[in-house]
Amino acid sequence: MLVRVLLACALALCAALASADDFGVTPPAAPVERWGTLEVALAGPSDGNPFVDVELSAVFRQGARSIAATGFYDGDGHYKIRFMPDAVGQWTYETRSNRPALHGKQGSFTVVQPAPGNHGPVAVRNKFHFGYGDGTPFWQVGTTSYAWIHQGDALQEQTLRTLAGAPFNKIRMAIFPNNDDKAGTLRFPFAGTPPRNWDLERFDVAFWRNLDKRVAQLRALGIEADLILFHPYDKGKWGFDRLPAAANDRYLRYAVARLAAYRNVWWSMANEFDFVTEKRMDDWDHYFQLVQAADPYDHLRSIHNAFRLYNHTKPWVTHVSIQHGAATLDPERAVLYRDVYEKPVVYDEVKYEGDFTRRWGQLTPEEMVLRFWNGAIAGSYVGHGEAYQDPQGMVWLAKGGTLRGKSPARLAFFRKILSDSPLEGLEPIDKWQDHPFAGKHGEYYLGYFNRERPTNWPFVLFKTGLADGMNFRAEVIDTWNMTVTPVPGTFEIKKRDDYTYADKDGRGIALPGRPYMALRIVRVR
Amino acid sequence: MLVRVLLACALALCAALASADDFGVTPPAAPVERWGTLEVALAGPSDGNPFVDVELSAVFRQGARSIAATGFYDGDGHYKIRFMPDAVGQWTYETRSNRPALHGKQGSFTVVQPAPGNHGPVAVRNKFHFGYGDGTPFWQVGTTSYAWIHQGDALQEQTLRTLAGAPFNKIRMAIFPNNDDKAGTLRFPFAGTPPRNWDLERFDVAFWRNLDKRVAQLRALGIEADLILFHPYDKGKWGFDRLPAAANDRYLRYAVARLAAYRNVWWSMANEFDFVTEKRMDDWDHYFQLVQAADPYDHLRSIHNAFRLYNHTKPWVTHVSIQHGAATLDPERAVLYRDVYEKPVVYDEVKYEGDFTRRWGQLTPEEMVLRFWNGAIAGSYVGHGEAYQDPQGMVWLAKGGTLRGKSPARLAFFRKILSDSPLEGLEPIDKWQDHPFAGKHGEYYLGYFNRERPTNWPFVLFKTGLADGMNFRAEVIDTWNMTVTPVPGTFEIKKRDDYTYADKDGRGIALPGRPYMALRIVRVR
Repeated sequence: MLVRVLLACALALCAALASADDFGVTPPAAPVERWGTLEVALAGPSDGNPFVDVELSAVFRQGARSIAATGFYDGDGHYKIRFMPDAVGQWTYETRSNRPALHGKQGSFTVVQPAPGNHGPVAVRNKFHFGYGDGTPFWQVGTTSYAWIHQGDALQEQTLRTLAGAPFNKIRMAIFPNNDDKAGTLRFPFAGTPPRNWDLERFDVAFWRNLDKRVAQLRALGIEADLILFHPYDKGKWGFDRLPAAANDRYLRYAVARLAAYRNVWWSMANEFDFVTEKRMDDWDHYFQLVQAADPYDHLRSIHNAFRLYNHTKPWVTHVSIQHGAATLDPERAVLYRDVYEKPVVYDEVKYEGDFTRRWGQLTPEEMVLRFWNGAIAGSYVGHGEAYQDPQGMVWLAKGGTLRGKSPARLAFFRKILSDSPLEGLEPIDKWQDHPFAGKHGEYYLGYFNRERPTNWPFVLFKTGLADGMNFRAEVIDTWNMTVTPVPGTFEIKKRDDYTYADKDGRGIALPGRPYMALRIVRVR
Repeated sequence: MLVRVLLACALALCAALASADDFGVTPPAAPVERWGTLEVALAGPSDGNPFVDVELSAVFRQGARSIAATGFYDGDGHYKIRFMPDAVGQWTYETRSNRPALHGKQGSFTVVQPAPGNHGPVAVRNKFHFGYGDGTPFWQVGTTSYAWIHQGDALQEQTLRTLAGAPFNKIRMAIFPNNDDKAGTLRFPFAGTPPRNWDLERFDVAFWRNLDKRVAQLRALGIEADLILFHPYDKGKWGFDRLPAAANDRYLRYAVARLAAYRNVWWSMANEFDFVTEKRMDDWDHYFQLVQAADPYDHLRSIHNAFRLYNHTKPWVTHVSIQHGAATLDPERAVLYRDVYEKPVVYDEVKYEGDFTRRWGQLTPEEMVLRFWNGAIAGSYVGHGEAYQDPQGMVWLAKGGTLRGKSPARLAFFRKILSDSPLEGLEPIDKWQDHPFAGKHGEYYLGYFNRERPTNWPFVLFKTGLADGMNFRAEVIDTWNMTVTPVPGTFEIKKRDDYTYADKDGRGIALPGRPYMALRIVRVR
C-alpha cells in the first residue's frame, strides 16, 4: 500500500514539475478543467503605479450564473485575471476596469471534466469534516514548513520532492519570511530592498510568481496550501508584522486576487496570532472579513493561536485551527473543542517530532503519531511538524528540505486507515464517558488504546444503532509497526445493559500488550 | 475546622428560619442593609387583571445615581416593589404607574452597613473567578436539588436543615416542577388547576411567596440560589416547557421583578436546554436578553446543556455552566473550556454520587470529590449531586431531604483548602503540558495527583515568577482522609533548565502511595 502511495506521488510530481513554469494556469484559448485555473492575460498601462491606480475585474458567466473575480497587475504592463470554474461547459467573461485598455474585453472558454487527481476545492462537510468538491472525503493529514518558499530554489525543489514521497495532504506555509531567513538572492512580497526599505504600494511580482508556481506544484501533488497570511516571527526585522493598515489590506487583496483561483488554497489569517504584538483582536476580525469578501470561492478560513484562542464561533471562521501541547493526549480531551465550536477542528500544532531543547520540539515519533490517532478518534484532525537539530539549520519545520523522522511512514499508514473509513467522517461513538472509539454507529468502529498496553478487549459496543443478532468482524491494528491483523471469525452481539451490546458468548479480542494498538470493527451482513 | 463551619451554618440557619415568614425583606420605615432587600408595599386596584393591566416601577435615587426597579402584583390589591441598594446612606424613591393609586408615591430610607455574613451579590472577578460585592472571593462549591421547592413543607424545611450543615454555597433549583412531582397540595407558578388548566395571564402568588421565602432562607445560609428558569423534565405534563411565547416572557419578567432584589440570585436560563424540545436557539438568546434587560443588578446569567453546548461566547452569558461526564477527569481536560470562553467555568453537572443504574448517577464518593479537585486545578468550579436509590424516591438530586453520601464531608474539607488559597483565584500554573498544579506564580502552588499513587514528588516548579534562592514550605494533603501534613523544613530553589526550578539539593517530597493526594507549596520569605 505504501509503495502504491509513493508511486502515485512520484507520478504526480513529474506532472507538477513539468508545468512548473506556467504557474499552473490555462489561457482561455485552451480547454480548462473544472476547478482548474483559467487566466485571462491583458496588456495595459504601465505608467504611474498600476498596483494602486488600476482597477480590474471580470464577470464570468455560465447561463444565469455569474461570478466576479478581481484581477491583478503582474508587472511590465501585464494584467491578469484568474478564475476557477466550478462547472463544465461554455463560459464567457467580460472585464471591467477604470482604464479603457482593460475595460469591456470579452471572451469565452470551455470547461472540461477534471483530470484524475483533481477533486476540486476542499470545503466543510458534515459539520465536523472536510470534503472535496467532487464528493471525495478529505482526510486531513497536515504538515508544517513555515518558510520553505523563502529558501533557495534548489532547496524549494527538494522540499517538493520530499512532499511527493510523504503522506501529507496539507502544508502550512507562510507568505512572509521569518526573521532568520537570509536576504541573499531572495525576493520579498513588496518591492524595495531588505531589510526594511519597502515600497508598500508596489509588489515584487517575481516573489509572487514563485509563490503561484509553488502553490500550483502543491496542487499537482494533491496537497492543500494552508497559506499563513501574517505571523509573529518577523519581530520587526522586515517589518511585515507591523505594516500600516492600508498596506495590510492591499497585501491581502493582492494575495487573494493572485491565488484564490488555485483550488488547493486555504487562508490562515495567522500563525500564533496572539504573539503578533502590533495587531488587535478587531484587526483579525477585519482580515477575516476582507478575505471572505474578496474570495469568490469561499476557500477555508481559520487562524492559529499560541496561548490565547480566537473566538472561532465567529461566522467567518470555517474551521478551527488549534495549537495546543496537551489537548490531543487523549480523545476525550480532544473532542471538547469540537463540541464548543461545532466546526471541523484541526490541531495544526501539537508539538513537533524532534530533538530540540525547547519542549515544543522534542516529541518522540511515537508521541507524534499518537496525537494523530487521538485526534481522529475525537472526530478531529492533526498536523505534523519536525524539529531535529541540524548544524546547517536545515529543519523541516522552518525551511523544508528532507524529513528525517520516523513518524511520516506511520502517518502514511494512518492516512490509509482513515481513507478506508466511512465517507461521512469519523464520529465519536460515545463522548459522554471515556470511550476511545470513533466511527459510524452500527457500521464501523475504530478504537485506539493510546499508551495503554491491554492484552484483551471484551467485545462491547455502545448501544446506538445496534440490535441483537448483528455480526461484526474485527482487525487488530498496530499503529506503530503498521500491521493489520484480522481476528478469525465474526462476533454476534446481544444487548448487555442499558448502554451496551456485547458478544453473545462473552468473547473478547486478544491484544499483544504493546502500546499504540487500535481495533477496527466492521459490520458483516 | 469542620466543626466551626457547621456551627456557623447552624447559627445562620436560626437567623434564616426566624425571618422566614417575612420573605427576608425590609420596609422603608426600617434601616435596610447594603445588599439587603427593601420592599415598598402599596395598595392598588384589584379589578380587571392586575398582573397584565397594571404597570408599576420605581426609581431609586442616591445623589446623582438612579436605579429603576419593576414592581409586581402580589394579589388582593397588594403591590410591591423590591430593591437591593448597593451603597449605604440615604436613598429616595418615586413610583411610576399607569394607575393613579400607584403613581408618584415617594419615600426615603436609610441603608446601613451589611451585617456579618452579608458580602453582597456574587459577580465575575479576574476573568475566570467569582467574588462578592464586598471583595470576598466566592469559591463556588455547588450542589443540585432540582425540585426541592416542589415538595411538602416539612421536606423543604428538612432540605434547608441539611444545607445548613453541608459545605455548599450554591444550589441549582428549578422554578417549574418536574413531571413526577405530585400535584397534591402543591402550588404552581401560574394560577389555575393542575395538570394543565392554567390561567397564563395570572400567577399563583402563594407559590411565589414560598419561592421568595426559600430564596431568602438560602441567602441567610450564605447559599446562592441558581434559579433554573426552564427545563425539559415537564415533558408536557404541566405544559410549562411549551408555553406560548407571551406567557414565557411574562413569567420571566415576573420572576425577575420578584426575585432580583435578593442578592443571592443567579439566573440559569435552563437545565439541559438542548433537551427542551419546544424551544429554538434564538428563543434562548431572547430569554437571556430579556432577563439581562429586566434585572437592575446584572445577576450572573448562564445556561446548562445536555449534549449540545450553547455558544457561551455570546455577550449576555456571564459564566459558563457545563454538563459533561468526562471533562473533569483531569485538569488538562477541564481547562480547555476556560481557554475557549474566557469566562468562569462551572462544571455544574459532572455525574452524581450514587447507586443509580443510569450511568450519570453512580459515581463513587471518591470519584465525585476527584472531579472537584480536578476542576479547581484547572482554574474552574464544580457542582455536586447525589442520586442514591430510595424506596420513597427521596433522592437529594430531585427532592432534597437528607444527604447520605460520603462526598460532602470531603467537599467541606476541599472548600476550606480553597478558601485558604490566593484571593485572586487558582490559576493553572502551566497548562501547556500535563502539569496538575494551580495557584499563583512564585507564591502558591496547589497540586493534585488524581488517581495516581506517587510515592515521591521531586520538588520542581514551573519557572514563571521564580528566582534562585526563593524558599518554600510544603504540606501533603490527603483529600479523601482530610489530613494536612506539613513537610519538615523548607525548600530552596535554583534554576534547573529552560522551564523549571528545583530544590537546590535535589530533594523531593515523600508521598504515601495512595490516590487522591495533593500538595500545597507556599513561599516563605
